[in-house]
Amino acid sequence: MEPKDQSSRRKFIQQSAVVGAGLILAGPMQILAQTDNKEIMNKNIASKGYAGKDKQGILVPWNFERRSVGDNDILIDIKFSGICHSDIHTIKGHWGQQQYPQVPGHEIAGIVTAVGKNVTKFKLGDKAGVGCMVNSCMECESCKNGEEHHCETTGMVGTYGSPEKSSPSGITQGGYANNIVVTEHFAIKIPESIDLKYAAPLLCAGITTYSPMMKAKFKKGDKIGVVGIGGLGHLAIKLAVSKGAEVYAFTTSSSKADDIKRFGAKEVIIVNSAEALKPWKGKLDYMISTVPYAYEMSAYIDCVKPYGYFTQVGQPINGELTINNFNMIFNRVNFNGSLIGGIPETQEVMNYCAENKIYPEIEVIKASEINDAWTKVVNKGARYRYVIDAATF
Amino acid sequence: MEPKDQSSRRKFIQQSAVVGAGLILAGPMQILAQTDNKEIMNKNIASKGYAGKDKQGILVPWNFERRSVGDNDILIDIKFSGICHSDIHTIKGHWGQQQYPQVPGHEIAGIVTAVGKNVTKFKLGDKAGVGCMVNSCMECESCKNGEEHHCETTGMVGTYGSPEKSSPSGITQGGYANNIVVTEHFAIKIPESIDLKYAAPLLCAGITTYSPMMKAKFKKGDKIGVVGIGGLGHLAIKLAVSKGAEVYAFTTSSSKADDIKRFGAKEVIIVNSAEALKPWKGKLDYMISTVPYAYEMSAYIDCVKPYGYFTQVGQPINGELTINNFNMIFNRVNFNGSLIGGIPETQEVMNYCAENKIYPEIEVIKASEINDAWTKVVNKGARYRYVIDAATF
Repeated sequence: MEPKDQSSRRKFIQQSAVVGAGLILAGPMQILAQTDNKEIMNKNIASKGYAGKDKQGILVPWNFERRSVGDNDILIDIKFSGICHSDIHTIKGHWGQQQYPQVPGHEIAGIVTAVGKNVTKFKLGDKAGVGCMVNSCMECESCKNGEEHHCETTGMVGTYGSPEKSSPSGITQGGYANNIVVTEHFAIKIPESIDLKYAAPLLCAGITTYSPMMKAKFKKGDKIGVVGIGGLGHLAIKLAVSKGAEVYAFTTSSSKADDIKRFGAKEVIIVNSAEALKPWKGKLDYMISTVPYAYEMSAYIDCVKPYGYFTQVGQPINGELTINNFNMIFNRVNFNGSLIGGIPETQEVMNYCAENKIYPEIEVIKASEINDAWTKVVNKGARYRYVIDAATF
Repeated sequence: MEPKDQSSRRKFIQQSAVVGAGLILAGPMQILAQTDNKEIMNKNIASKGYAGKDKQGILVPWNFERRSVGDNDILIDIKFSGICHSDIHTIKGHWGQQQYPQVPGHEIAGIVTAVGKNVTKFKLGDKAGVGCMVNSCMECESCKNGEEHHCETTGMVGTYGSPEKSSPSGITQGGYANNIVVTEHFAIKIPESIDLKYAAPLLCAGITTYSPMMKAKFKKGDKIGVVGIGGLGHLAIKLAVSKGAEVYAFTTSSSKADDIKRFGAKEVIIVNSAEALKPWKGKLDYMISTVPYAYEMSAYIDCVKPYGYFTQVGQPINGELTINNFNMIFNRVNFNGSLIGGIPETQEVMNYCAENKIYPEIEVIKASEINDAWTKVVNKGARYRYVIDAATF
């Protein structure tokens, strides 16, 4: 008897052969495809991954189907998939009711193994990634301007949990799986020079922090505060340092202090109470918070200079945060939120990190370790991004 | 027997004679002052007004003393005093514990009846006003730049309820009274052309809306939304219209619609539910909210165009507002607060309104009607600013 992994792998290869005519396929599938294009046309792609079955948030192995590879689609053989706190919030229903089973994961990096006939951006064997969205209308002003995440008509289609007719399960299914089918426009080219396991976290943690920091148009030497030094925060530090900022890192975890210095931060502020923030009042040019839960936000906002900006990218339960307007009328800070980034900017941060060797600090885990990793993420135990080895699904 | 009013008035004149040597006095007091300068030197000024005695927020008549008129001070014989929702919040302890008795009121307009020897800005008989602050350090950068309300050392000294050594009651006492002593710097010159009863509300409601709107640097024809059409909101409409904006007024009171059109608003949106706001999503260049209670703020913020600004000047109980970051990451609006304005800018709005005949809509009431007026303010019954006739204290 074959080991389970091998058996499943074979079954997968057989099921994966169901890709449409007009596709170019790589590897073992290529042979199959060439032998009988018509038979496999318009057939779904078998996939296996880990899914949440209810809002308890326990992930279990799940075999499911992706849509067939359309003319504008590519099939990615996933190699690595990052774990984002958003995955946990979504599956647990913290951001609204969900349909289950649902496969989370929106930090996806792999190899292109099939391309539709209209595909021009990728060829077989290319490194490719998928971030937080897989579709949008592509016709509105926002979409035409590369701000697909702000699509004005349908809204962006999230990588998992979004209703989508073409998906056999009725919703999009994410990257905690061994493959994904995606419209080429929504796939990011991953440069040869960056390892896929480092590329994966850039597709959410990277772009989510990069985009607002670039909009803040900070100058070399400006003082940037980063609140919450986890998956997003540690990348925010590295990116801001690389762009010439003096970075001040605010964390509740004193055990992270040495790491944070190594990431290039000028100073680490261990925040045990609002008292720790007082010396920083009005001192920073810009601040970004990655904290994914409701917290005493106003004392942090106070650290920004008058008329500066504070961006909240962490999304708490139900999105609700308390803002104290007594602080706001005195601190004169502009508070805003920021949602990932468009496809061109996601490509930009990917290229920038590859060129400048800005890599996330990761711990590669097996699929069977996902539930433990989630617990650690919630308990601030991640150092700093868990990345699932997709060969273990 | 004299009517109570007359008796009190006489007693006041007698007590008011206790002004310091080096003062120039006007009216009946002038004679007294000239007769015995030394005797009245460094003596407190008798005052009578209405004070809150506890957080129940019922105002009662109260006789008290102001500090003597110092070399840099002026004595103002108050003629009119506006009622601001802040008075109610403060006395009721909504913004923190208070010391009582406390006389509220920070929209003060009257006539200068005494000036200290160093005073240059005012002469006897001038119209003068006092807004929300009566002192600051005058040495820090903010103070030197005319941003006294953002004093970086002592903080601004509020017109009422702020601890102040020079005040016989230990705290500053506000404008629901027949006179006030104030450092000349913190008094606003009121042009001859504007009636004192119209000038009073400009000193809080006027500057509080004018300052952030001017900072928003809107262009002629820009669409400005005003949320909450009361004392502040109706002035925001008039000011924005006067400066060339297209104004959209958001109110929960349908009975205000005709008035609002008369103030110059382009459109009135009666908001019975968040549904009423949906057509306005992303339509406005700038928005200012005067709502002084916690409310479903995020649906209003959504009405501003991406990267625009939303300013909250109304201060809810404890200052706490819920902001939904799901809205913020999609609407891309910058949220900020704004606190009154500095002395130069308060003078600016006073002059601007006088020149352009921008007058608040007021209802003049007697001191004995204050408690009823407060109830009406809370119940959205004011049309649009109650102004107390100080002759009735």
